[in-house]
Amino acid sequence: MLDQNQRPSPISPTIDLDARGVQHGFLRLPHSRDDSAWGSVMIPIAMIRNGSGPTALLTGGNHGDEYEGPLALYELARTLDPADVSGTVIIVPALNYPAFRAGTRTSPIDKGNMNRSFPGAPDGTVTQKIADYVQRHLLPRADIVLDFHSGGRTLDFVPFCAAHILPDKAQEARAFAAVEAFAAPYSVKMLEIDAVGMFDTAVEEMGKVFVTTELGGGGTARAETVRIARKGVMNVLRHTGIVAGAVERTPTSWLDMPDGDCFSFAEDDGMIETIVDLGERVQRGVVVARIHGTGRTGIAPIEIKAKMDGILAARHFPGLVKAGDCAAVVAVPQG
Amino acid sequence: MLDQNQRPSPISPTIDLDARGVQHGFLRLPHSRDDSAWGSVMIPIAMIRNGSGPTALLTGGNHGDEYEGPLALYELARTLDPADVSGTVIIVPALNYPAFRAGTRTSPIDKGNMNRSFPGAPDGTVTQKIADYVQRHLLPRADIVLDFHSGGRTLDFVPFCAAHILPDKAQEARAFAAVEAFAAPYSVKMLEIDAVGMFDTAVEEMGKVFVTTELGGGGTARAETVRIARKGVMNVLRHTGIVAGAVERTPTSWLDMPDGDCFSFAEDDGMIETIVDLGERVQRGVVVARIHGTGRTGIAPIEIKAKMDGILAARHFPGLVKAGDCAAVVAVPQG
Amino acid sequence: MLDQNQRPSPISPTIDLDARGVQHGFLRLPHSRDDSAWGSVMIPIAMIRNGSGPTALLTGGNHGDEYEGPLALYELARTLDPADVSGTVIIVPALNYPAFRAGTRTSPIDKGNMNRSFPGAPDGTVTQKIADYVQRHLLPRADIVLDFHSGGRTLDFVPFCAAHILPDKAQEARAFAAVEAFAAPYSVKMLEIDAVGMFDTAVEEMGKVFVTTELGGGGTARAETVRIARKGVMNVLRHTGIVAGAVERTPTSWLDMPDGDCFSFAEDDGMIETIVDLGERVQRGVVVARIHGTGRTGIAPIEIKAKMDGILAARHFPGLVKAGDCAAVVAVPQG
Amino acid sequence: MLDQNQRPSPISPTIDLDARGVQHGFLRLPHSRDDSAWGSVMIPIAMIRNGSGPTALLTGGNHGDEYEGPLALYELARTLDPADVSGTVIIVPALNYPAFRAGTRTSPIDKGNMNRSFPGAPDGTVTQKIADYVQRHLLPRADIVLDFHSGGRTLDFVPFCAAHILPDKAQEARAFAAVEAFAAPYSVKMLEIDAVGMFDTAVEEMGKVFVTTELGGGGTARAETVRIARKGVMNVLRHTGIVAGAVERTPTSWLDMPDGDCFSFAEDDGMIETIVDLGERVQRGVVVARIHGTGRTGIAPIEIKAKMDGILAARHFPGLVKAGDCAAVVAVPQG
Amino acid sequence: MLDQNQRPSPISPTIDLDARGVQHGFLRLPHSRDDSAWGSVMIPIAMIRNGSGPTALLTGGNHGDEYEGPLALYELARTLDPADVSGTVIIVPALNYPAFRAGTRTSPIDKGNMNRSFPGAPDGTVTQKIADYVQRHLLPRADIVLDFHSGGRTLDFVPFCAAHILPDKAQEARAFAAVEAFAAPYSVKMLEIDAVGMFDTAVEEMGKVFVTTELGGGGTARAETVRIARKGVMNVLRHTGIVAGAVERTPTSWLDMPDGDCFSFAEDDGMIETIVDLGERVQRGVVVARIHGTGRTGIAPIEIKAKMDGILAARHFPGLVKAGDCAAVVAVPQG
Amino acid sequence: MLDQNQRPSPISPTIDLDARGVQHGFLRLPHSRDDSAWGSVMIPIAMIRNGSGPTALLTGGNHGDEYEGPLALYELARTLDPADVSGTVIIVPALNYPAFRAGTRTSPIDKGNMNRSFPGAPDGTVTQKIADYVQRHLLPRADIVLDFHSGGRTLDFVPFCAAHILPDKAQEARAFAAVEAFAAPYSVKMLEIDAVGMFDTAVEEMGKVFVTTELGGGGTARAETVRIARKGVMNVLRHTGIVAGAVERTPTSWLDMPDGDCFSFAEDDGMIETIVDLGERVQRGVVVARIHGTGRTGIAPIEIKAKMDGILAARHFPGLVKAGDCAAVVAVPQG
Repeated sequence: MLDQNQRPSPISPTIDLDARGVQHGFLRLPHSRDDSAWGSVMIPIAMIRNGSGPTALLTGGNHGDEYEGPLALYELARTLDPADVSGTVIIVPALNYPAFRAGTRTSPIDKGNMNRSFPGAPDGTVTQKIADYVQRHLLPRADIVLDFHSGGRTLDFVPFCAAHILPDKAQEARAFAAVEAFAAPYSVKMLEIDAVGMFDTAVEEMGKVFVTTELGGGGTARAETVRIARKGVMNVLRHTGIVAGAVERTPTSWLDMPDGDCFSFAEDDGMIETIVDLGERVQRGVVVARIHGTGRTGIAPIEIKAKMDGILAARHFPGLVKAGDCAAVVAVPQG
Repeated sequence: MLDQNQRPSPISPTIDLDARGVQHGFLRLPHSRDDSAWGSVMIPIAMIRNGSGPTALLTGGNHGDEYEGPLALYELARTLDPADVSGTVIIVPALNYPAFRAGTRTSPIDKGNMNRSFPGAPDGTVTQKIADYVQRHLLPRADIVLDFHSGGRTLDFVPFCAAHILPDKAQEARAFAAVEAFAAPYSVKMLEIDAVGMFDTAVEEMGKVFVTTELGGGGTARAETVRIARKGVMNVLRHTGIVAGAVERTPTSWLDMPDGDCFSFAEDDGMIETIVDLGERVQRGVVVARIHGTGRTGIAPIEIKAKMDGILAARHFPGLVKAGDCAAVVAVPQG
Repeated sequence: MLDQNQRPSPISPTIDLDARGVQHGFLRLPHSRDDSAWGSVMIPIAMIRNGSGPTALLTGGNHGDEYEGPLALYELARTLDPADVSGTVIIVPALNYPAFRAGTRTSPIDKGNMNRSFPGAPDGTVTQKIADYVQRHLLPRADIVLDFHSGGRTLDFVPFCAAHILPDKAQEARAFAAVEAFAAPYSVKMLEIDAVGMFDTAVEEMGKVFVTTELGGGGTARAETVRIARKGVMNVLRHTGIVAGAVERTPTSWLDMPDGDCFSFAEDDGMIETIVDLGERVQRGVVVARIHGTGRTGIAPIEIKAKMDGILAARHFPGLVKAGDCAAVVAVPQG
Repeated sequence: MLDQNQRPSPISPTIDLDARGVQHGFLRLPHSRDDSAWGSVMIPIAMIRNGSGPTALLTGGNHGDEYEGPLALYELARTLDPADVSGTVIIVPALNYPAFRAGTRTSPIDKGNMNRSFPGAPDGTVTQKIADYVQRHLLPRADIVLDFHSGGRTLDFVPFCAAHILPDKAQEARAFAAVEAFAAPYSVKMLEIDAVGMFDTAVEEMGKVFVTTELGGGGTARAETVRIARKGVMNVLRHTGIVAGAVERTPTSWLDMPDGDCFSFAEDDGMIETIVDLGERVQRGVVVARIHGTGRTGIAPIEIKAKMDGILAARHFPGLVKAGDCAAVVAVPQG
Repeated sequence: MLDQNQRPSPISPTIDLDARGVQHGFLRLPHSRDDSAWGSVMIPIAMIRNGSGPTALLTGGNHGDEYEGPLALYELARTLDPADVSGTVIIVPALNYPAFRAGTRTSPIDKGNMNRSFPGAPDGTVTQKIADYVQRHLLPRADIVLDFHSGGRTLDFVPFCAAHILPDKAQEARAFAAVEAFAAPYSVKMLEIDAVGMFDTAVEEMGKVFVTTELGGGGTARAETVRIARKGVMNVLRHTGIVAGAVERTPTSWLDMPDGDCFSFAEDDGMIETIVDLGERVQRGVVVARIHGTGRTGIAPIEIKAKMDGILAARHFPGLVKAGDCAAVVAVPQG
Repeated sequence: MLDQNQRPSPISPTIDLDARGVQHGFLRLPHSRDDSAWGSVMIPIAMIRNGSGPTALLTGGNHGDEYEGPLALYELARTLDPADVSGTVIIVPALNYPAFRAGTRTSPIDKGNMNRSFPGAPDGTVTQKIADYVQRHLLPRADIVLDFHSGGRTLDFVPFCAAHILPDKAQEARAFAAVEAFAAPYSVKMLEIDAVGMFDTAVEEMGKVFVTTELGGGGTARAETVRIARKGVMNVLRHTGIVAGAVERTPTSWLDMPDGDCFSFAEDDGMIETIVDLGERVQRGVVVARIHGTGRTGIAPIEIKAKMDGILAARHFPGLVKAGDCAAVVAVPQG
């Protein structure tokens, strides 16, 4: 593994990562393919550096069908005045850029799920090459990483900001403080069970602060969720001292997702009916969703029940569902 | 045209359209194809008949990615007790069944948009054959047609029930009365400019009552919009006298869509940001949406402005937009 | 319709249809497309003419995934000695050539089912243009047409030769005599219910003798069924006097397919199990096939029963079945 | 046919076709589809009008993989000064815009070949709707039409301007004069054998001047061929008097394509080798191309011979060839 | 490799592999993808445990287009009475479930050939993850494995049960005894030349009994071959003592496949004609198949000859053949 | 890596690589897949051996859309008289045969770029298996390798022969002498920056002479470039003494590509216009290409400038360009 990683990244930035001021450019990744023998993937990147201070790496489009992050970050890259910055803001608004351009969760080139591709590989797939560049060239520069997610085309979430429960409690506290600063309607303490390949893990293993979000979903963005994203990113920059001024605090409700019983999975194909809407209370044992067979009329639907008390925090989005899909997620309000 | 239409439909129902009681079956449409030489399209149909009274034809899945209608109608077909019926209820919960199974607006077989395929043709495409069967075999039996729509995967609407402004004002009044009975949060009087090929037109030209809806969108259904659909269809059945009991009235806001200035179209590809949410007030000249170029950072977005005062009644749903897409629809509250 | 048909066919033959001897060539049909601006479809044709006598048109590949006909006819075109011929043999071994090259029932260009495309159109689809050429240029030359079919990839048949029950009983008798001469293991008198667009109908409406076959299926050919095809075509040529010598008679069993109760259709998707094999006796009411749900274990299969006494004459071939597919065909042995 | 055409076009222009000055806009064609329920095709159009004088309609992208026309016309639309114009120049630089965006000859929406879609239909396919709009709304305004073509991805041509041999010799003379003015390296008098559906025919049947080109091919454009296109279009505008100044005359060689023997078609699939290059002399009977089988080594190639004396005017472009493709075109130098 | 395999499997069973009685459930494998962010592959599994005795692992659908195994095993899972069992029967009727649902040999997700994916990997492809789970969680529990195969869509076999010639002759003898008990019409002693990645090898390397079959093919199942499968699996269970009662013995013919000369490969594309049918005698040097070129008539076919005496044990199934395909397999009757 | 490579190659040649005379055959690579369970990839290979002398390995089709090499090598394989040979000529005219058959740069099976797949792997993808066979079975036999390239469908080059600047100057000198002998219009000394996975590197690391070409492009071959290829390969064989006779010398111009400033990349999608043609002089700072937006008229194109003096040695070929594509390559004439 080490030998492999010592191979240089094929990606070359068109901006100078050590320069000051505002720069707009690309991470250029050569990508030879049938429709372009000497083609490249051009991943937009912006950097705003001024004075001295910490470095924030802000990423959107880790999954290509989630829009609150890109909407906040393209705007921030365009409008953030370096005079207001003390430190460095690196913005990659569409991290899995091929996926983002296609409007799909994973890359159309290699089906790569960016958030399962870390630490990446310089001679791997396109997605792994991007991950490797982030791992070896951007993360070492960062003090804090804010990685935007939403539910994408197939899930919908109540809007929340989140960080992981970590073995290093000081690191964890710094992360939860940043979540608190983000000030989304909900805030979540996540216990990661399967952390293999995640961007989160890559950052946390370096001892840095990692903050993430789920700000809606369905492959769209609402005006409200975009406002949450924009306020949140500015709040985090203020919280770190990169941007001056007080964090704009608004109330947030803390949620737990204690174990696997939060998740209800479909065991059948069909048309899904969610019985409660996002944010509504559910009780253990109530039906939260039903799956209707559609091949003929007159057939009773299959019921999916909540396995704990809480609120409906996420749900399957498309009208059709397949066996194995996550139908509903219940989270437990704290305090 | 007449000769062609006198050719018999290739569709055969597996239920007896003249029988009483509850029947669940299919409209079987032979469809020879590469993966089934002697295959058929099997369109579920249910019929509940009892006593004497008018006939309602209830249809969902005219577009295959709209779910409030199918969720209301599969359920109704399963649960409507013939003892409660005086007349006939014909339910085709997924009219463009191939589209519905694929979760797409149009049929994957022939790309047919059912709502532009009327009056259909017995020797046309699969979609046209279904339309022709409805036109010649189901519509003549119906007194009222309730055809459910939602925005589908690419549009989102405030939930409304609607009927057309018609030259026959008595017919129009009957339709608006049924809309009023449906009791959706919004009710719309629509002026159809381009009625060619629509199911609506086919029904209205026979002098019958045609009621339709737009109950949300995005290719999903929410618990709330499903409740609206279920209440609405029962209300319409009560309103016609097919089901006994009083219409369950709840307040509705009437909206107008007076002319083409309601609609704002994108002239550019990019990532769309809707500045106001559905149902919010907009004023003539304000920016309702912006299109962000995504190829590089640092580029100003293109602004789309409202062309009249009103509320945001519909919007483009997916995060990406293409030149020519409808970005926003403004409707004018009445009274 | 007439005006349209008076437009000349775009197809030009590379052989002289009025010449004597053996000719191998093409029906060249210009077909401009993305991958060939000035491309053509080249449909192989062979003609053997000698002395005086009737004309037989022999066709295979009407459906592109049926191989007994093409195997018999490419061979016949290569080996038939004009010295043995009194009259004319026109051989189009792969009538829907694009479908045949793709190994699919219908044309990959336009999804055209050749046997539903007659009389065709000179300005229609590629499939319709081929049909039109046959209709207007080949059929007028023919006295008898032998069109080979098998079940294709999705059906399997007991091997039979067949002709239609016709209003003109003299014409019918000539056709059944040719069927008898073909001497397949089974011979079938078919009552066509839906004859629209069929090659059969096009020929019969001209008062000519039309003979067809179903010689197996599954998208393959067995040595035995190829031998049946080769013997059959030579027998038909001998029967007409185009080739000298006695018909090589072997026993054949005559079957009837009296009405729609011969056919059993699946109403569910799943894995199909045929309970009896082709040619075996079935009795009215016995289970001939079962459809197993595959989404989970422990579910009882759905049973499909025979609706009349007879033998299993055809069955769905692939292991998976879809709602609407023909699962089984029962035929009634005669006499 | 007439009734159909009296139906109004669904296309609405975003520019005022009766206004003066420079306008850039779109022909907006509503196109409901799975990925945009209320989407449109937006076909760019520009118009420059000043003073009095004739109207020229300039079109590129009739086939979507031909670039000299679009390169000349987007540039002309951007740079033509209305002060230099006496009359009207209507520019549609990418007529089959969906094809042009896809880089394909035909439309990816409906596989429509624009040059076989005239006079179009307002309720037909997208390609037919565009043709219908041109036929009924743009052509009546035009005095002369210059429609740019090149070989596209699958053919390559010596660069020429051309017009048809016409029954109306005065009309023909006006067209050849415009061809002469265009001043391409080659000029061609074409005898159209199959004119059905062509844009050319639509224009000529109105008695107007129609001029076309073939300016290279292969799905690319060279600097040289773009210069020919740009000089040519300005020359035609000067020739008509719409733009002041003398035609910039350069020598042109006139060519004839007298009959079908100009064209050599492949009868086999394989790898093609063109033995002479474009513009080189060939003699009747010499081998102009060979088709190599590639399935194994050691096999002799198939030879394709010229059927007349002349120069190689066009050839199959891609390295692979299919049976039925046009391999080579020979033209006969005049005078 | 070891480190990797010590990573836990992502698969979780919904049944308790240590419980008694009948259980129907799933192996749930999380599979995040564009159409389901939190989706899973749900592989049906059934387990019947009672009393004490050995454990049999019964698998079908190793290749997704082979149906005798799944038809026998879904039925067995549904009907096997635990009262009749002494020991444990684990049934995975569709091992490569994504392939089975698609009706394809390999997985549509990753093109994985399950039988070349052992020992699998917990962080590999979906197919490798399933293999890894079987390798590390199911195989250690098994004493005997019966893995059903048939020819699939592209091969057809005489029906046989088989085991491998092994270095451990005691293990080999136990396997051949189980083959004898299966009592298929043919029984085969296989010498595996390339065993890399096979399920067979994975089992045999653990010193366990591995029995497999080829029971027909073509992507279908016949009543006869399903009966062979059902009788065979019960016989094997009786033979092991898991089910009481005597093995139902029927005659079987033992065959050898001594070396690579059993296999004849096509060197050309075309239409294949098999000259002898399955089970028929062939002699060294006779033509067993011919490949007909289809691009034109009049061309001699290419002959493929048997390289040894024996019977035709398998053949290419589809009517079209590609260079490199296995055309025919000859096996040598023993004794 | 070593363990893996010691696994034997799955490829078996149908010719005897140690025999004399002319042999035509295949490298047969088993490839089980959905459409052929026991299929193979059949890569044509020819070998001509006579007398004693060195061994040349001649390869084309390393990329599947480049035709000068295959056209020269199929012809050479067919016509080279062993009596004229002293030594051995191994010809693989279409190295990435699946790509060559598809007419694509990379393999349609695995998207493998052969020239990034060395040293390959016997248990890797199909492309890697071919590379591994070449690496371990063909390269050890070769003294010199001539690997033909052209620009393929997406690039166009001035015709040149080339070798690499190498650390071993004696090896380098032998390579440049062979380039000189090839006698293309241009000769290039290449400094490879990223040599990972290249065939070139694999050969050079064995200390052997490696010569390559770029002989045009666009996915076609011109008569002129084919003549260059044919003369070149004979010259190289004469130069090595494998074929007797003097090298046919013609003038060549030597070019340098000193560093990354040779290459200009597009940063925008659009329609590309190359301002100068191949071989024309360019000066540092001049516009060599422009990218035109096509979404609307009236927009200024983006200019791409040369970063050094030289000639235009290569350019993007298709009319459309994507951000990241190489737009132009400038090379510096030497001496």
